[in-house]
Amino acid sequence: MAVITFSSDYGPFDHYVGVCHGVIARIAPNVPVIDIAHGLRSIRHGGVVLAQSLPFTPSGIHLAVVDPGVGTARRAVVVVAADGSMLVGPDNGLLPPGADALGGVVGAFELTNAAYRLERLSSTFHGRDLFAPAAAHLANGVRIEELGTRVDDLVRLDPPHVEVSDGELRSEVLFTDWYGNVELAASGSDLAAARLTGDVVVSTAAGSFDATVGRTFADAVGIGLVVYVASGSRVAIARNGGSAAAVLQDPDEVTIRAK
Amino acid sequence: MAVITFSSDYGPFDHYVGVCHGVIARIAPNVPVIDIAHGLRSIRHGGVVLAQSLPFTPSGIHLAVVDPGVGTARRAVVVVAADGSMLVGPDNGLLPPGADALGGVVGAFELTNAAYRLERLSSTFHGRDLFAPAAAHLANGVRIEELGTRVDDLVRLDPPHVEVSDGELRSEVLFTDWYGNVELAASGSDLAAARLTGDVVVSTAAGSFDATVGRTFADAVGIGLVVYVASGSRVAIARNGGSAAAVLQDPDEVTIRAK
Amino acid sequence: MAVITFSSDYGPFDHYVGVCHGVIARIAPNVPVIDIAHGLRSIRHGGVVLAQSLPFTPSGIHLAVVDPGVGTARRAVVVVAADGSMLVGPDNGLLPPGADALGGVVGAFELTNAAYRLERLSSTFHGRDLFAPAAAHLANGVRIEELGTRVDDLVRLDPPHVEVSDGELRSEVLFTDWYGNVELAASGSDLAAARLTGDVVVSTAAGSFDATVGRTFADAVGIGLVVYVASGSRVAIARNGGSAAAVLQDPDEVTIRAK
Repeated sequence: MAVITFSSDYGPFDHYVGVCHGVIARIAPNVPVIDIAHGLRSIRHGGVVLAQSLPFTPSGIHLAVVDPGVGTARRAVVVVAADGSMLVGPDNGLLPPGADALGGVVGAFELTNAAYRLERLSSTFHGRDLFAPAAAHLANGVRIEELGTRVDDLVRLDPPHVEVSDGELRSEVLFTDWYGNVELAASGSDLAAARLTGDVVVSTAAGSFDATVGRTFADAVGIGLVVYVASGSRVAIARNGGSAAAVLQDPDEVTIRAK
Repeated sequence: MAVITFSSDYGPFDHYVGVCHGVIARIAPNVPVIDIAHGLRSIRHGGVVLAQSLPFTPSGIHLAVVDPGVGTARRAVVVVAADGSMLVGPDNGLLPPGADALGGVVGAFELTNAAYRLERLSSTFHGRDLFAPAAAHLANGVRIEELGTRVDDLVRLDPPHVEVSDGELRSEVLFTDWYGNVELAASGSDLAAARLTGDVVVSTAAGSFDATVGRTFADAVGIGLVVYVASGSRVAIARNGGSAAAVLQDPDEVTIRAK
Repeated sequence: MAVITFSSDYGPFDHYVGVCHGVIARIAPNVPVIDIAHGLRSIRHGGVVLAQSLPFTPSGIHLAVVDPGVGTARRAVVVVAADGSMLVGPDNGLLPPGADALGGVVGAFELTNAAYRLERLSSTFHGRDLFAPAAAHLANGVRIEELGTRVDDLVRLDPPHVEVSDGELRSEVLFTDWYGNVELAASGSDLAAARLTGDVVVSTAAGSFDATVGRTFADAVGIGLVVYVASGSRVAIARNGGSAAAVLQDPDEVTIRAK
């Protein structure tokens, strides 16, 4: 049976997530819905979360909404991934990284068929009126060609900024999580390429901080900060029992140098 | 099959929501439970959320708990709506707006039958001990008359304060959401009646701010604030890519004037 | 059918909870998962939440992750409770209080069998790679002896600090919830043993505050703070319509004296 996963920037406090669940339950009452994350902080962060999460969930329909352009001319799309999964959401760069992590984009359709929306389309809540209904109809087995017309020029974000040299790694920050762990765009291979191990210095706009390249949060004990390859294969900075983001003052970019 | 929806002010961090899910699963193991929102900020906010959400969910049993008077003489009730849905919660004004949005209140019962509660009734957690069990038994098909005795004097809150004149709209704020969008009690019709379009000035206790009457969040780009009719048909104020609530300093009341 | 409950410190914003749901759904697609709480603040707080919650949920598999030592030599375990439930998580003191609330620990196994993990074990996300798979396999009916080897020296935390004398109760704070209610390690029996009733003084590092021993939040109206026995049978301090934690400035320890 089909499964729907659901990711958004709707937050954990309001009714936006629950209303979308309600809409899905009316159209596809027997389809399980798995919430992935509803605290997405940006389109880029959303793409990273989809890429890190979807390979661990069942194949199916992946509904994702981070949509600052809702109600404007930005397109609403379904993206088909190589494993047969379908990603539903705005065409603003959010979905392709998720499809890439499932083997790549093999096709995409714009959601133009009004028969698969709610009757009244608001200009600020397409999660409820457009995306959740499309995901539910797809989970019910409606053929993707029914929902709209094929497109082949999906919007993609520029890759994030990463610079590697011997003994130095400079990287854009992708997100800070609930623990205050700071996750970078740089990958574990970038860290290896920069030949950074042992004691290092982490520099941000807020200053320079001693850190150690380690493997677990416990490696930060007594040192303060640990630079490690996080569970999503990207470089991250953590503080054991505390918030690295607070120490580094919510950086947008980080430089790590050998000490 | 019956569905239970669940809304509360229990928040997304603690175990209060999960314990109620557990209680429901013990009594009605096969009934799906859809969480609507657990960040309700007040009884009034809860009523607004129910009214905006329940028309989009399956008919069924709607459990809702915002209950500052828990353990006092306030009654525990089930309210029957015109569409056959049943709303379970405290009799403090929370439930009637939800029933109104489902066609109106057609009956109500006080939860007096101890056979449909947990054995031990605490004085501070009736969600667990009283409301969740009642919702689960109703979902199991227990007749509403079994749960208690009919009442016909449900508590209702006074309507929120809204004043409309030509070129000016003054309104109570209903809630601020996770984005920092500020949602007013005034409706889209009130905005039209005040003949407010284009450039306007939004005044709060914190000062006066330029804004534009628009349709989407994108309409705020370069202007700062957009006044729009939100997905729940009420007037709201947003800031594209930021928090209107932070700019307006969490207002209780807002005045919008033609510029 | 088996049920899995899930508690963690992963927070309500990120994808860590959702990814674990995805992993479970791939291994045990028909098993319902009930989220208990994902805002656990410490190992001790996690144990308290499990003890207060699990007796209200169906028996089954209880997955719990608060794991600052992830990736180090700390063991991963399944603890069997007297009611037949199985608790899965790190061996750091988190699980035993939950098992105690279900009749006591009757056995424990270390998760050593790599056949019941994901193929690649990260060093920072054992919820995804180790604990969620183990819980899902147990829910599928895999025998506990298959997962690893018996252990009989589970880690347990020292009991929290509570001192009772006539007219005075001194207690460690266990946690502060979303409302700002401050929950103590002291039990209702401790409060009775200290013979505290009526007007009292609550002292913290932030100063001394008038309070009353009451039964409901409404008992705090006009007084400010109410000391009561909370729904988990422990003493708590609340402020009606506000945050006791804010008044008391997030105390680690509280003393309550007769006035």
